Amino acid sequence: MTAQKPSLPKGVRDFGPAVMKKRKFIMNTIEQCFVQFGFEAIETPAVEKLSTLTDKYGEEGDQLLFKILNNGDFLDAASQEIYDAKDSKKLSKVIAEKGLRYDLTVPLARYVSMNRSHITFPFKRYQMQPVWRADRPQKGRYREFWQCDADIVGSTSTYGDVELLDLYNDVFLNLKLPVIIRFNNRQIFDCILQNILNDEESFRFMQLIDKYDKIGDKVNELLRTDINQKAVDIWMKLLEANGKETNAEKLAALNLLFPTIPLELMKELEGNLDLVQDKGENAISLDFTLARGLSYYTGIIYEVVPQPEMLPDGFSVGSIGGGGRYDKLTEMFGFEGGQGVGISFGLDRIYDVMEATDLFQNYMEDNRNILFCVMDTENMPMAYRLCKSLRDMGLNTELYPKALKLRKQLDYANAKKIRFAAIIGQNEILNKTVMMKDLESGEQKQMDWSEIPIFIQAG
Amino acid sequence: MTAQKPSLPKGVRDFGPAVMKKRKFIMNTIEQCFVQFGFEAIETPAVEKLSTLTDKYGEEGDQLLFKILNNGDFLDAASQEIYDAKDSKKLSKVIAEKGLRYDLTVPLARYVSMNRSHITFPFKRYQMQPVWRADRPQKGRYREFWQCDADIVGSTSTYGDVELLDLYNDVFLNLKLPVIIRFNNRQIFDCILQNILNDEESFRFMQLIDKYDKIGDKVNELLRTDINQKAVDIWMKLLEANGKETNAEKLAALNLLFPTIPLELMKELEGNLDLVQDKGENAISLDFTLARGLSYYTGIIYEVVPQPEMLPDGFSVGSIGGGGRYDKLTEMFGFEGGQGVGISFGLDRIYDVMEATDLFQNYMEDNRNILFCVMDTENMPMAYRLCKSLRDMGLNTELYPKALKLRKQLDYANAKKIRFAAIIGQNEILNKTVMMKDLESGEQKQMDWSEIPIFIQAG
Repeated sequence: MTAQKPSLPKGVRDFGPAVMKKRKFIMNTIEQCFVQFGFEAIETPAVEKLSTLTDKYGEEGDQLLFKILNNGDFLDAASQEIYDAKDSKKLSKVIAEKGLRYDLTVPLARYVSMNRSHITFPFKRYQMQPVWRADRPQKGRYREFWQCDADIVGSTSTYGDVELLDLYNDVFLNLKLPVIIRFNNRQIFDCILQNILNDEESFRFMQLIDKYDKIGDKVNELLRTDINQKAVDIWMKLLEANGKETNAEKLAALNLLFPTIPLELMKELEGNLDLVQDKGENAISLDFTLARGLSYYTGIIYEVVPQPEMLPDGFSVGSIGGGGRYDKLTEMFGFEGGQGVGISFGLDRIYDVMEATDLFQNYMEDNRNILFCVMDTENMPMAYRLCKSLRDMGLNTELYPKALKLRKQLDYANAKKIRFAAIIGQNEILNKTVMMKDLESGEQKQMDWSEIPIFIQAG
Repeated sequence: MTAQKPSLPKGVRDFGPAVMKKRKFIMNTIEQCFVQFGFEAIETPAVEKLSTLTDKYGEEGDQLLFKILNNGDFLDAASQEIYDAKDSKKLSKVIAEKGLRYDLTVPLARYVSMNRSHITFPFKRYQMQPVWRADRPQKGRYREFWQCDADIVGSTSTYGDVELLDLYNDVFLNLKLPVIIRFNNRQIFDCILQNILNDEESFRFMQLIDKYDKIGDKVNELLRTDINQKAVDIWMKLLEANGKETNAEKLAALNLLFPTIPLELMKELEGNLDLVQDKGENAISLDFTLARGLSYYTGIIYEVVPQPEMLPDGFSVGSIGGGGRYDKLTEMFGFEGGQGVGISFGLDRIYDVMEATDLFQNYMEDNRNILFCVMDTENMPMAYRLCKSLRDMGLNTELYPKALKLRKQLDYANAKKIRFAAIIGQNEILNKTVMMKDLESGEQKQMDWSEIPIFIQAG
């Protein structure tokens, strides 16, 4: 075996210790809130049947699926006719029957459909796992990245809608990352477009306003040229209502501008507003320009972005969370009871924002780790025993495995951000003492072995 | 889209909420020990280059790699000559350049080699991630399963060897799963086979004794027929030394029976024995019959099995942990400084053993979750606010999202093992009270809203 220069495939990443600490902090914060709200964890396999994954994400999505080659003599399954065509798409169908998870939503729908008879509905599940997409890698876009999803399946109650707004609110409050939690309701579009635009025009309308964040006023022009003036008029009214100060004022304005919105929907929207309230610097903002693309949402829709004023100049990031209510998620797997509502947290983007805004420095963990530094090889066994007995008392300890120069051992402690060095030379062994050094403050103190736990706790 | 009957590929699994709670318990226990011993987390991507993975696990291993089809028109890369051969192996080399991680050791070697200039050695890393093998699925053998590894890379100190024995000791003590931690040293074989068996015979010797667990005394016969009587003689002496009562007695017997073992190695083995001690019902057992297959180990080797008397009749499981010291792990990637020692925990098998022995019942979490059950739709908003305010005080609360019959709501609480029901009807709203019911004890008590937190804490 000759040595090879190691490298990673495009778009995937290693996470070293420093990065992992921060990622774990984010994931633990999200998970604690999930649990507090009554969500329970499930995990699904990375590898799914391609029949489960294909036709669920549109044609573009299908092309981004990672397909796994069948094992063994996979070409045996290819008829000579198919083989001779030498067509990648056709051949892949017979030589690759499995693929990598593309999101956590389709696996959830599959899971719920398969296990419907064992599940107590409403099923509140969370899931935090990587997903894979063969997208062109670029800044902030990876081929392997993590999603953290919470869904309430098997319930049409709008209390779920509100609960997920509050869940976003709590998570970002706990992360100390101020956000705008935008929400809207797809049914508003249904009401106000009905009888004015036909289905195709409505579809195009949603497509265009979904780009408002990126293209701004150009939306007007495209609405006029691609659809008609009526579409522009609707859009102008939506913007007018959206321009009001408070959520309640927005809703009142919407009601006035679009009298066709049924009373029932208005009452639901008002009821939701009554229950939510901003926390910390977060803003929960009703936003009639929010459309959430062409996805399967049928009711409330969510999108979370960082408060723009907190981002450094030139730093841009899309949404760091999103979701909505769906009616037919599990129908593709033959189960009719899968109405629900769900949200997703984009771990990798949340990480990028917190890193760019120096937010992690608020979370330097309470580090009371100890490194035992021994000056003489013959004293290592005694130091090892001492180190172990402290560990049995619940302290985080390790022994530097060789009696090298102290400088070298302290370098190791500093690189690992270990807080305390317990230095042991010949005298210390004789007197059953140790020189404890706080590497943060520089303070150091000779003490009996029995005093170490108290010193560390007080540290 | 027509409805399809959903199913999973062979050998992979979903984990529902009840199973996830237990898996998380095991993983948290392992992780806490890793951290206490000074190990730091890394994660590597599921998807690696096939050039990184192949030729590392032997020919059989290569066949068990899951290969990922290149995206787009992957057949473009296949020359007509290669294509016309219609040979799965040859074609796969040009149409699949990525594969799924097969273990956590080769990715570690790649990671260390790629990041050698940023890493402070000795590098103590842990990693808990799934791996994939296209093995024939059977009871206890999965195609997607989890490994939890701790390694110390860049150190030849035998304090690391001992530390990992202690790490096994602590983890299984904390899991309350009594185990035998068997260990041996590959160098013993080097010394006692040297000048008696040639390389090929030595190789076969290791191969055969590795099967001792499974085939017992048949090892003797095979040693005689496949190698020679000298091999049998060595084996009989090893068994004799192994039959002694204590580790110290075994070592003394070994020394007597094989005078060729150098003093230095004997001193090292004695030194290790001096430092370790059993904890709880665990046994740390020097075992000269342990060979750990044909792997890359060069010093200490480890293998963990459950104490046989604790297993139910007819329940068999292989090792639930293993590892050892290696000299050349990173050489395949051109880095010479990768000497180290590592151990692995088999999460799925540990789970299976704990489930089969009813061990999880020791860990029913301290569950103080509350379900708010509202009797009248018009009181839901007030109940939602109350539920939220308790959550802000740190309690785990959720609101049943519809004012259904109480029985139905309590069924939900029971299915999710929620401990407390907070029942709210018309009277309770008027008086700002709640009927708190402890679903475990059956006890129930009417109380003011303000009293709930104290009641739950005391519960």
